[in-house]
Amino acid sequence: MKNYLWLVALGMCAGCLHAETGREAWLRYAPLKDSARAQYDTLPASIVLLGDSAVLSSARAEMIRGIRGMLGRTLRIEKGVPGESAIILGTMESIKAAVPALALPEIAQDGFFIASVEFGGLCHFIIASPNDRGALYGAFALLGKIAREESIAGIHEVQQPYAPVRWVNQWDNLNGTIERGYGGPSIFFDNDTVRADLARVGEYGRLLASLGIHGCTVNNVNANPRVIQDDFLPQLARIADAFRPWGVQLAVSVDLSSPQKTGGLDTFDPADPRVSAWWRGRVEAIYRHIPDFGGFTVKADSEGRLGPSSYGRTPADAANMLARALRPHGGILFYRAFVYDHHLDWRNPKNDRARAAYDIFHPLDGKFDDNVIVQAKHGPIDFQAREPVSPIFGGLRRTNIAVELPVMQEYTGQQKHVCFLMPSWKEILGFDLQADGPGTPVKDILAGKSFHRPMGGYVGVVNVGTDADWLGHPMGMANLYGFGRLAWNPDLAAETIANDWIRMTFGSDPAVAQTIASILLTSWRTYESYTGPLGAQTLTDILGSHFGPGVEASERNGWGQWHRADEKGIGMDRTVATGTGFTGQYAPAVARIYESLETTPDNLVLFFHHVPYTHRLRSGKSVIQHIYDSHYEGAERAEDYVAQWESMKGRIDPPLYESILARLEFQAGHARVWRDAICNWFHKMSQIPDASGRVGNYADRVEAEGMVLRGYTPLEITPWENSSGGKGIECRLPEGCTASFGFDRAAGWYDMDVEYFDQNNGESRFRVFVGDQLVDEWVALNRLPAQKPGGDSSTRRRIKGLGLRPGDRIRIEGIPDGEETAALDFVSIKRK
Amino acid sequence: MKNYLWLVALGMCAGCLHAETGREAWLRYAPLKDSARAQYDTLPASIVLLGDSAVLSSARAEMIRGIRGMLGRTLRIEKGVPGESAIILGTMESIKAAVPALALPEIAQDGFFIASVEFGGLCHFIIASPNDRGALYGAFALLGKIAREESIAGIHEVQQPYAPVRWVNQWDNLNGTIERGYGGPSIFFDNDTVRADLARVGEYGRLLASLGIHGCTVNNVNANPRVIQDDFLPQLARIADAFRPWGVQLAVSVDLSSPQKTGGLDTFDPADPRVSAWWRGRVEAIYRHIPDFGGFTVKADSEGRLGPSSYGRTPADAANMLARALRPHGGILFYRAFVYDHHLDWRNPKNDRARAAYDIFHPLDGKFDDNVIVQAKHGPIDFQAREPVSPIFGGLRRTNIAVELPVMQEYTGQQKHVCFLMPSWKEILGFDLQADGPGTPVKDILAGKSFHRPMGGYVGVVNVGTDADWLGHPMGMANLYGFGRLAWNPDLAAETIANDWIRMTFGSDPAVAQTIASILLTSWRTYESYTGPLGAQTLTDILGSHFGPGVEASERNGWGQWHRADEKGIGMDRTVATGTGFTGQYAPAVARIYESLETTPDNLVLFFHHVPYTHRLRSGKSVIQHIYDSHYEGAERAEDYVAQWESMKGRIDPPLYESILARLEFQAGHARVWRDAICNWFHKMSQIPDASGRVGNYADRVEAEGMVLRGYTPLEITPWENSSGGKGIECRLPEGCTASFGFDRAAGWYDMDVEYFDQNNGESRFRVFVGDQLVDEWVALNRLPAQKPGGDSSTRRRIKGLGLRPGDRIRIEGIPDGEETAALDFVSIKRK
Repeated sequence: MKNYLWLVALGMCAGCLHAETGREAWLRYAPLKDSARAQYDTLPASIVLLGDSAVLSSARAEMIRGIRGMLGRTLRIEKGVPGESAIILGTMESIKAAVPALALPEIAQDGFFIASVEFGGLCHFIIASPNDRGALYGAFALLGKIAREESIAGIHEVQQPYAPVRWVNQWDNLNGTIERGYGGPSIFFDNDTVRADLARVGEYGRLLASLGIHGCTVNNVNANPRVIQDDFLPQLARIADAFRPWGVQLAVSVDLSSPQKTGGLDTFDPADPRVSAWWRGRVEAIYRHIPDFGGFTVKADSEGRLGPSSYGRTPADAANMLARALRPHGGILFYRAFVYDHHLDWRNPKNDRARAAYDIFHPLDGKFDDNVIVQAKHGPIDFQAREPVSPIFGGLRRTNIAVELPVMQEYTGQQKHVCFLMPSWKEILGFDLQADGPGTPVKDILAGKSFHRPMGGYVGVVNVGTDADWLGHPMGMANLYGFGRLAWNPDLAAETIANDWIRMTFGSDPAVAQTIASILLTSWRTYESYTGPLGAQTLTDILGSHFGPGVEASERNGWGQWHRADEKGIGMDRTVATGTGFTGQYAPAVARIYESLETTPDNLVLFFHHVPYTHRLRSGKSVIQHIYDSHYEGAERAEDYVAQWESMKGRIDPPLYESILARLEFQAGHARVWRDAICNWFHKMSQIPDASGRVGNYADRVEAEGMVLRGYTPLEITPWENSSGGKGIECRLPEGCTASFGFDRAAGWYDMDVEYFDQNNGESRFRVFVGDQLVDEWVALNRLPAQKPGGDSSTRRRIKGLGLRPGDRIRIEGIPDGEETAALDFVSIKRK
Repeated sequence: MKNYLWLVALGMCAGCLHAETGREAWLRYAPLKDSARAQYDTLPASIVLLGDSAVLSSARAEMIRGIRGMLGRTLRIEKGVPGESAIILGTMESIKAAVPALALPEIAQDGFFIASVEFGGLCHFIIASPNDRGALYGAFALLGKIAREESIAGIHEVQQPYAPVRWVNQWDNLNGTIERGYGGPSIFFDNDTVRADLARVGEYGRLLASLGIHGCTVNNVNANPRVIQDDFLPQLARIADAFRPWGVQLAVSVDLSSPQKTGGLDTFDPADPRVSAWWRGRVEAIYRHIPDFGGFTVKADSEGRLGPSSYGRTPADAANMLARALRPHGGILFYRAFVYDHHLDWRNPKNDRARAAYDIFHPLDGKFDDNVIVQAKHGPIDFQAREPVSPIFGGLRRTNIAVELPVMQEYTGQQKHVCFLMPSWKEILGFDLQADGPGTPVKDILAGKSFHRPMGGYVGVVNVGTDADWLGHPMGMANLYGFGRLAWNPDLAAETIANDWIRMTFGSDPAVAQTIASILLTSWRTYESYTGPLGAQTLTDILGSHFGPGVEASERNGWGQWHRADEKGIGMDRTVATGTGFTGQYAPAVARIYESLETTPDNLVLFFHHVPYTHRLRSGKSVIQHIYDSHYEGAERAEDYVAQWESMKGRIDPPLYESILARLEFQAGHARVWRDAICNWFHKMSQIPDASGRVGNYADRVEAEGMVLRGYTPLEITPWENSSGGKGIECRLPEGCTASFGFDRAAGWYDMDVEYFDQNNGESRFRVFVGDQLVDEWVALNRLPAQKPGGDSSTRRRIKGLGLRPGDRIRIEGIPDGEETAALDFVSIKRK
């Protein structure tokens, strides 16, 4: 085993056997077919590195690794420009020194120039950048072109990042768990220390660098003060060491109350000189261990975190105090704009959490130091599948700002559902806030172009874990890839990003590419269709998992994610005229659109307006019928993803094929859970029937609570809409229970769905019999965020191809395990 | 983990993820594509089993498993013939009783009838057999047709086995090792007991049953007497239990000297009544534990095993004594004809091991009881790649006889080389011994047809192990599959067998099928070409591994595998006129062919005649030039297998693709070792140059012993022909050694082969540098039968795509491990 690792560490595992686990993501460097390889035959045989930093060495090593993998050649390392064609890699400065005659373009930091150039009678390949990191990005860019089989003949290309800050956050706790992490435990921490083996951190750094991402905050924004204590700093330094060869700077989240909690002071008032002195001391200690430390991320006065408001100070007071400690060392302070009162009085129709960021930060515009970046979520609420763009982006003209985007799908299926967010992010980045009349799209504000800011950009919350595929779903990585590509160039089309990712991850089979692209590019709207309608937000359980349905979880509490649905209608009136006044936070041209029910687009109508269910949308449909229709259509599309995927059998590495199939099957089943929960809740509330007669009518179903039960007992499911008929059954006998029913329909081939509840606190076993014949069995061991029967745990088992005859008895045996009670909701039997 | 096993045990692992490991071999039951599946839509939905034995239940369960896997439907189990179409499975008798009107054909034991029949106005599928086992074989046959996507519309088919005995042997030792086993340790034994987990035994039984194989001797013919001691019998019974549901009878090999060794007697004389009483007692004890026990296999008076000759008794005396103990219980006694003197005087030109079987057993014809089967290897020597058919098959007319065939490739590459033996076995089985004039092909003798014997048939020595792919090479299983198919029907073409196996193992991609078939069907002649020429036998190290070359290992010792090569010529004169008289053991018509140099086919000429190297073959070539040419051609074909396989990339499950690629690459390298060893030995001996100038001229090579060595020291390789130049280098410094040399050829892209020695008693590490640049590294951890540098361990590492320039220094670093000295033979550098 040690020998195997020894090989892998050097990336030369040519002869070793491995299935596609997803660990290499889009950097597989799989051998090209001969036909595709031929166009690269003229690539030089040598590579020259002008310079010797760790980052430049990574660039050279990556070129050698990539060319070896894809073209089967080992580039020769030359010390200086040789008497033959070569790939010449280095900073502009070093290349100019070596080849003074060469004309090089002006390029921004991190940008690069790739060109086929002639001098001394030879044709060389130049990869040049103002800085080391840029040269590394250039190497990845060239390798990416080869991986996608693009022509590089006569290449002469300059690429520069659209925005200067392209950063990621990880919400990892020091104990190894990850808040809102869906890909396994932390790659950084375990048991309150930094992991001994940081191989995955290096691999993560490489993936980030391949996208031009240059910084990573590694711990939860709900920060543990221990992370900057003396004894922890040598450990942090090890993480920085693993990132450094990839040009990724380490940052940490800090707890603003640390001076009091762990620093021995009786205050953490940012205005108290003892507090700022304490922070200066911490920062100096950090930089002694990590000279290229990136900075701090701060969540304060938010969701129970202490902050400057404790002392009547502002976020700017707190941010600047920290920024001034960081500034001498070149560090940055990210101050999160996710500050809101979560004890809002829901009875006051003027209260509105959506207002919070603008209300708090807009008055402080111009008060933040130049090495502070305000980090704001894309929408005014919280990573919903659909929100308007947050007005804060138009409200800070003298402040650096970055958008926080959810690479992890916290509110969009948590990587149990495919939800490729590029189409959403493209809408956000392209949205013109018209801060000075037309022409201030979000992407330009972030880039600092609109208001001439020196810094700004993108922060993705990623939360990769130790799962081989990083995020828990092979398709999930498309969001990390897309995040990086858009942060570099927000003008790229979602289709381009999807196709590039597929090509590099799955290879060049056109049928595979088309199928995956079709799933990815429709997946966000599909997810939106079967979850939250018309901008009412993702109607999930906001108090818990953020995963399954929970329509009322948003209401009658202080968290402010209200949609105000009742017997008559739904929606938050956020107009200036009659509502919370939120629309007034936008520039007038945008505010006008949202202020009027007539001009608000359908997909945000309930975010801005409260309307009766019978309100006619611009589409011509009533609100209630739209809710029904979109949920049925979305669930059907999710079902169709399974069929599309099944047509790929034999074209994709079998374990990968099976693993994605299992996830798509789960998604299709869970989309049904969503569909029925939302439709039934609104049906019951509105009392308006579905014009297509689907809602409430499930002819093919047999409710578990209506079966003949032996040992099983009925169980109320809360909230009621998350199970069929509001009830299920559970088994509390260790030896197991049975539920049975008679089949009295016509003889034929049927598919049978068993809807059961798969919690994460037990592994119940199920067996299904027709008569005495065992026809299926399984163990409930999916990793779902659920500890009780309900919308988070409801799971479909599809048993295909059963020949059933009238008079058959169908029996389900469940054996509980741990706290999981082998609970069942219903059985549905459909003709094949 | 327990839960996972729980699922697998029932064969219903629909949702679980697995790569193709080869464990399911040709019984994968992979889902058919929709287009292929449609033709089976009319298959009945129900299955009725008439009868209730374990074997019949297996047949029904297999039908359900197969149909579920391939067609995605679960057959309904019905208790009696239902009022709808059904698959009706059972014995002829039970089917006649249930449906008296049905006309059923006469069928031999183990045969079956599969037909689509109409009665009661319904169309049923019948699978009927005289015995339970035959019904199981019928189920496998029907499922095989579906797996191969063959039509079953209007099927009306009778299949009967060509020969009544279709058996396999395993040479497993009770300590868990396997003599001549190349697929890992025993699935039966470990640490002198039967394994606790016999899951693999059940799986093996299923594979055997799918081929119609009905018996298995589970322990080494060099038997440990302990296997039939009282305390071992309950353990043996557990193996029998695992085999029983698949209709596979358990047998064991016994040590004829057991009465003396462990039985407390002072003799094992078969004529002594105390000895026969002792054996009767043992047999009775066995049958008390295993009522359906199959019998014994005996190796005696052979290779140091004691036998009846100790008391002047004959094999018939010994065999009958045991057979009489077995007879009351229905047991069979297999007596191996592999009896020869291994202390033959090589100086006597009349001595000939090939004569032994006939000389010893022919005089005993008619003396063996009816429940004795003489088990004879296919040729007169021992599993060589090329031998004539053993004359013993024509020499026993009143004795039951079975052929022993090497499924494990003892002398044909040991599953490190692909060598599909069906073309060879087809030649053997079709060979007409003309015992009564034309018309007694071996297959008819084995079947008992030629001489009207009640029993006879096939015994395959298989030696599967715990490796996931059973035999250590995914392609190796084609020989087990082919053995079973030929034992059932020797008239099947090798092409049919190869295509069926590929279809069931790799799926229906025509390009994959064509490539694998092309490799399989040429592989035996390829192996023969680069190992033993013209019937001189496989020129391997017969005293050790039977794996790598060892030309002189056969000579000047008592083992009698002599080829008599010297300075002048080669071959054994086995004629009646001037030689050992072996040809006289054949019937006159056959003997005449072999007696004359003019009529002996080229591929056996050296088996029957001693000729000078300049002798012209019927092909027109001289013997010596044929030796050179065939070895170069064979090695080239092995190289071409790699290229053919590489064109399959992307069409085969990646881990399986990689694992086969690694094996084919090893084979191509080892074919070079063989080629050079044989050619150089004969070149040195004959002093006759290769007309094509290849032998002895290796322009691209740099001998390791000629490099600049730091720490490495020169090493003589024995025998000399097994390394390039007769020498290598070894490293005995724990910190490692280096060997380097200058490159002075033209600049360009090159492939570099490093020939090193990979033993099984250490894991040396190697690194290769061009200048200071690491270009490759690996660990020598192949599992080869070698404990020293030489022809068994010589291994090629191919480093592709190196850009080399004149003046480059190439340096190899080796770090020894254990008893492996990181030894090197040479480096070869070829332009791409």
